[in-house]
Amino acid sequence: MAAHSPRERLQAHELARISGVPGLIECVPNFSEGRREEVVEEIVRAIGQIEGVTILDHSRDETHNRSVVTFAGSAEPVVKGATAGVGRALELIDMEQHTGAHPRIGAVDVIPFVPLGTTRIEECVDLARRFGEQIATRFDIPVYLYGEAAIRPERKRLADVRRGQYETIRDEIGTNPERAPDYGPARTHPRGGAVAVGARKPLIAFNINLRTDELATAIRIANTVRESSGGMPAVQAMGVLLENPGMPPMAQVSMNLVDWERTGIAAVVGEVRRLAREAGTDIDHCELIGLAPTGALLEVASDTLGLRGFGADQALELRLARER
Amino acid sequence: MAAHSPRERLQAHELARISGVPGLIECVPNFSEGRREEVVEEIVRAIGQIEGVTILDHSRDETHNRSVVTFAGSAEPVVKGATAGVGRALELIDMEQHTGAHPRIGAVDVIPFVPLGTTRIEECVDLARRFGEQIATRFDIPVYLYGEAAIRPERKRLADVRRGQYETIRDEIGTNPERAPDYGPARTHPRGGAVAVGARKPLIAFNINLRTDELATAIRIANTVRESSGGMPAVQAMGVLLENPGMPPMAQVSMNLVDWERTGIAAVVGEVRRLAREAGTDIDHCELIGLAPTGALLEVASDTLGLRGFGADQALELRLARER
Repeated sequence: MAAHSPRERLQAHELARISGVPGLIECVPNFSEGRREEVVEEIVRAIGQIEGVTILDHSRDETHNRSVVTFAGSAEPVVKGATAGVGRALELIDMEQHTGAHPRIGAVDVIPFVPLGTTRIEECVDLARRFGEQIATRFDIPVYLYGEAAIRPERKRLADVRRGQYETIRDEIGTNPERAPDYGPARTHPRGGAVAVGARKPLIAFNINLRTDELATAIRIANTVRESSGGMPAVQAMGVLLENPGMPPMAQVSMNLVDWERTGIAAVVGEVRRLAREAGTDIDHCELIGLAPTGALLEVASDTLGLRGFGADQALELRLARER
Repeated sequence: MAAHSPRERLQAHELARISGVPGLIECVPNFSEGRREEVVEEIVRAIGQIEGVTILDHSRDETHNRSVVTFAGSAEPVVKGATAGVGRALELIDMEQHTGAHPRIGAVDVIPFVPLGTTRIEECVDLARRFGEQIATRFDIPVYLYGEAAIRPERKRLADVRRGQYETIRDEIGTNPERAPDYGPARTHPRGGAVAVGARKPLIAFNINLRTDELATAIRIANTVRESSGGMPAVQAMGVLLENPGMPPMAQVSMNLVDWERTGIAAVVGEVRRLAREAGTDIDHCELIGLAPTGALLEVASDTLGLRGFGADQALELRLARER
């Protein structure tokens, strides 16, 4: 125990050892459809019917007109599931008809592969590249590699791949060498546009809702905390205004924590709280979207309580998971 | 999701469902030996060699001259493991030679059976009674049933069973009907004394160390928070002074949270902090001893962050545990 810092005792590989969870791959495709529930259900069904695939989560957003499916399994079923999802989405979604608040380049906007348990990121990089090449051929669609799977360094950031969105790519892909795809034809798919395929570490999608309706406050706080404008490492953030029917509007700092072992949940909440109070407001509540590494949640408990010598091996159900 | 309160989404049965952890029984025998490491190791080995038993934790305390072993499995191996532990302890420990700070009635002072996963407390009550009867016969030792397994209502509280300790029971068991055992002979075992066998829910052993060396402060706070003197429900607490070589003495509130769904970790820490500050000191740090239900730890994270709609099914490794 002395050899491990508290942080080490909460890391993913340690959780995998404790719980006996094997090496798995998570896939989190984002589809450009968030309004027609039956279309999203169809796509989820196409993925989930593959033997060896487990659907962990799916959600859709009407304002963004976008949905996110989270599933996991070993490499082969995950590739089959992702391929099935792409096939069904290309049948059901037409980018020429699509509008929404969220930037996107195609019917299947982005497909990240994420290492879980003992899986290494390098395995997901290889898988993303092989998968990207396969779907480019099979569906005759241009594929851009991003994140850790990027071949061109200027495509590491998804936002750069997505610049100008579907409409710009459609118009420039054949003529602008900067927009040439990594795989597939130098023209967009007639209905599906293009696809970004990548590999990344697990991220935590985390929203902090403020007790104000001033969007400017959320934007200012987001700009202060995010890494790209000199804030906290491994934090992506944007300010948005939530406008739900029957509810007062609420400013939100919407974040991705892309490496919680560098900047954890408690650290970012503490900083946002400080900035919100400086601006004369405060945090109302927080939301965790989808799944988060258990170590990141236990770290919040451990930090809050000032626990000395705490490790994830003290969490009963994690320890029991390997005894089945 | 709407049908579940946040608290419900962290409860043990929900964790069992999410993680796929089956019904298991935990057994936490306390042995009256904390100084001879090789004796404790012998006992742990005797338990751990039973097929189907998993040793989850063991620890010993020199001041208390006492050790605690935590192991789990299904009913049959757990009974075999506990029987093996009793047998070895009766060979290696002599109560006539034993001194220590902690009250005790025998070489195997107490054996609680604890439901884990989908196991119900009633199963542990049955098991404790059958096991108590078996060891009384096999080892010719008096057995008292306590906790949920108590047959006499005045034996529900372990402290009442243990009143006057080994020496009083040895002297009174044959003559005082109040001390008559539930099973076994009306005289103590020549080396092993007596055994308390019971059933209880999982408890959280949690210590809060204060920034003071005044034992009286820790005792006063313990008296305020514990249920038996009108404090918080399902909280047991005592004040102790930690005196470790090379360290300044430190007052500690040492607690058992016997039903965290009634009073959770964050609630008790908040109350102790308030009382400590009133007394002109503060919490230095906390310690979690052994294992705790994962839901109790996730609740601390959820409360701290003000998470809305959070459930244990959002903890990645718990969700993956059933996918092995």
